[in-house]
Amino acid sequence: RAQFDPTEHPHRRFNPLIGKHVLVSPHRTKRPWKGQTEEPVLAKLPEYDHECYLCPGNSRSGGVKNPVYKDTFVFENDFPALLPDPLPFIQPESHLPNGTGPHGADVADDTSSSTPDQTISSMFESQPVRGGAKVIIFHPRHDLTLAKMSQDEIVRVVQMWKDVYVVEGERIRSSADPGMEEEGYVQIFENRGAMMGASAPHPHGQVWTLSYVPDEPATELYHLQKHADTTPTPTPTPTSTSTSVTTPHPTGPHGKPCLLCTYAAEEVARGDRVVELFGGWVAVVPFWAVWPFEVLLLPYKRHIPSILQMTDDETKDLATILKRILVRYDNLFKCPFPYSMGLHQSPLPPLHPETSIAHTHFHFYPPLLRSASVRKFLVGFELMGEVQRDLTAEQAAGRLRGVSGERHYLEDVA
Amino acid sequence: RAQFDPTEHPHRRFNPLIGKHVLVSPHRTKRPWKGQTEEPVLAKLPEYDHECYLCPGNSRSGGVKNPVYKDTFVFENDFPALLPDPLPFIQPESHLPNGTGPHGADVADDTSSSTPDQTISSMFESQPVRGGAKVIIFHPRHDLTLAKMSQDEIVRVVQMWKDVYVVEGERIRSSADPGMEEEGYVQIFENRGAMMGASAPHPHGQVWTLSYVPDEPATELYHLQKHADTTPTPTPTPTSTSTSVTTPHPTGPHGKPCLLCTYAAEEVARGDRVVELFGGWVAVVPFWAVWPFEVLLLPYKRHIPSILQMTDDETKDLATILKRILVRYDNLFKCPFPYSMGLHQSPLPPLHPETSIAHTHFHFYPPLLRSASVRKFLVGFELMGEVQRDLTAEQAAGRLRGVSGERHYLEDVA
Ligand SMILES: O=P(O)(O)O[C@H]1O[C@H](CO)[C@@H](O)[C@H](O)[C@H]1O
Ligand SMILES: O=P(O)(O)O[C@H]1O[C@H](CO)[C@@H](O)[C@H](O)[C@H]1O
Repeated sequence: RAQFDPTEHPHRRFNPLIGKHVLVSPHRTKRPWKGQTEEPVLAKLPEYDHECYLCPGNSRSGGVKNPVYKDTFVFENDFPALLPDPLPFIQPESHLPNGTGPHGADVADDTSSSTPDQTISSMFESQPVRGGAKVIIFHPRHDLTLAKMSQDEIVRVVQMWKDVYVVEGERIRSSADPGMEEEGYVQIFENRGAMMGASAPHPHGQVWTLSYVPDEPATELYHLQKHADTTPTPTPTPTSTSTSVTTPHPTGPHGKPCLLCTYAAEEVARGDRVVELFGGWVAVVPFWAVWPFEVLLLPYKRHIPSILQMTDDETKDLATILKRILVRYDNLFKCPFPYSMGLHQSPLPPLHPETSIAHTHFHFYPPLLRSASVRKFLVGFELMGEVQRDLTAEQAAGRLRGVSGERHYLEDVA
Repeated sequence: RAQFDPTEHPHRRFNPLIGKHVLVSPHRTKRPWKGQTEEPVLAKLPEYDHECYLCPGNSRSGGVKNPVYKDTFVFENDFPALLPDPLPFIQPESHLPNGTGPHGADVADDTSSSTPDQTISSMFESQPVRGGAKVIIFHPRHDLTLAKMSQDEIVRVVQMWKDVYVVEGERIRSSADPGMEEEGYVQIFENRGAMMGASAPHPHGQVWTLSYVPDEPATELYHLQKHADTTPTPTPTPTSTSTSVTTPHPTGPHGKPCLLCTYAAEEVARGDRVVELFGGWVAVVPFWAVWPFEVLLLPYKRHIPSILQMTDDETKDLATILKRILVRYDNLFKCPFPYSMGLHQSPLPPLHPETSIAHTHFHFYPPLLRSASVRKFLVGFELMGEVQRDLTAEQAAGRLRGVSGERHYLEDVA
């Protein structure tokens, strides 16, 4: 009988960061595609577009006029999904047909001590939330992307992320109910390209701030904490009989193992999923990648709870590796590569970073699969059963390593 | 101060079926849309298309010729994501750089008893899986959809689901390793429309069978079991002082509370999220809906672990309510409404249905938000932070109730 070969045979991988699996079907890459194709993305845009509501000096859809900014520019989203402090002292209310109902019931998962009626009404709880939404324009030029900006310009974007992270964190903290210990979150992200729902091609990202830790980072923090609490501290000895590749791993707060530090250092040692290595940063197609060319970017030499703890060098190196990843993306299918990118770090700017189990990292979720116009659809089976991918993470990393991270395809054209 | 009003103010809701939240931003529906719009879907297709690889008598992409089928037609997917029994007796292998490594390590979540090296290599485990993928063509006519098929024709589709469920379940069970107690899953689903990744407009669905229970149903089953184990059995007494709407709820196996039975009966009593009520079935926009016009369809009068336990009447009523939901969908934006639909039920056809906590239900995840061409993008914040919606579930249900479930918009045109 043939040996199991993960480059040929269907298999399942586990993502320890969120406790979920992915089904990998490498043999399926031969499948022809007769479904929807995407419109080719215009690679050549004007430096200034008088119809763009993000260009300097233009009016936005809400009516406000942008200043003639010269660098990055931040403003409050004109249609924010979150509002600052709308109703701080009002308790959640359950949705009863007549509009009234018991106050203050908890939506907590554990219903063991509740009565049946409480259980039922807790199914219909709406929890009021506070927060805000900001837009960060990366550059005044309409035709640029992070991939085409200089390292210095990207450093200024990272600097802006740090500033907004502090300011927004303070805003949530200071508006908390008196006496309430609240843990909020500042979610920094970018939707790049119309295919990923970006409503404008002008280079920009967003920051949504919340009076709670949303599900995705909360799940990651839960698994990071559990790993720290249940994994024995690594003590490599010369008598170790394991065949695993062991390297000294950086540790998290109080010397406890950090799942992501361990994972990152191990990926560097193994190498087959590494796309870029620069300074203290590594970019990999994670072992458990879902999106065809998903990338995880994180520090592998030391535990960094949030971008506030980065040194100047780490900040500059981050700008460099960010640019390199995005140049590789654009070069892969010779198009402005669409993606959603998000930064996960410590909930609200940490006052005591040495205690946070969070380890700064960026997720890149790009939808393209085969070409600039054929994407992966995460639909039926993926939504109802389990996420699924065709090419393996190792194959995707190989493809990304196979194109340049230095020279953008449009430079060759020009 | 104003009262918290869930139709106006941002809030968070909890989905007890999967233990996740959704951020609801009803004030955001006023947001203008300048991003990507979708191509209008051709509503008029020919009855037969000689280029369609699903039409009767045509050749498929794999080369095989379809028979001139007259009813439903099932075949093995030419490019299946799962393969039957590729390597039954081979243990998982960890991905070490040199391609060899310790065998048989477990990907289980609990790493408390493992050594650091085991912990690291268990991060890189690939688990071989078995299974299969089938395509079910709903009708020989290229231009039909479930919404336009007769009740009798839909009953035959449901009958086909029952048959495939049994046959595929048997296939997995009989190919299990000797002595291994395996729990597999038969995932029945439909991707409708190019926007949801369907590669052909010809009416068809799919069935993927797996030698394990995939994450989505596994998560639901976990929460159903937990609810049954920790919720006190309802004993309504005349002295009950609760203001909650209480109705006698059907219960799950051994008289234990079933989360979905309780939820469904309660939605029927409350009414504001109900879209259709027919026979023993209710279709609601669930309280925790993520997709703008998401629908959950389930029995509310008795616990039904799988479609095999449906009576003839329940089967017929299911066909009727399925059609009505889909007619409403098409009527909402006067287009062939795209969606992914999936059936969740008991893992592998239950031998002892009275013991399964599963309660048969269908999820409908349709992407459209404002019109036939403007969809909701679940991207940046939704992927990195938490799923988010604009209009409330109650508003969506109201919109769906506001269009006909009986008369299809194309009937008016004809
Ligand atoms: O099998 P199909 O219809 O060709 O493909 C479609 O459904 C599958 C199951 O949801 C997905 O994996 C594919 O991405 C999608 O395009
Ligand atoms: O805020 P934007 O860029 O207009 O909108 C985009 O990003 C948001 C945050 O991921 C999403 O909720 C929207 O669906 C998407 O179109």
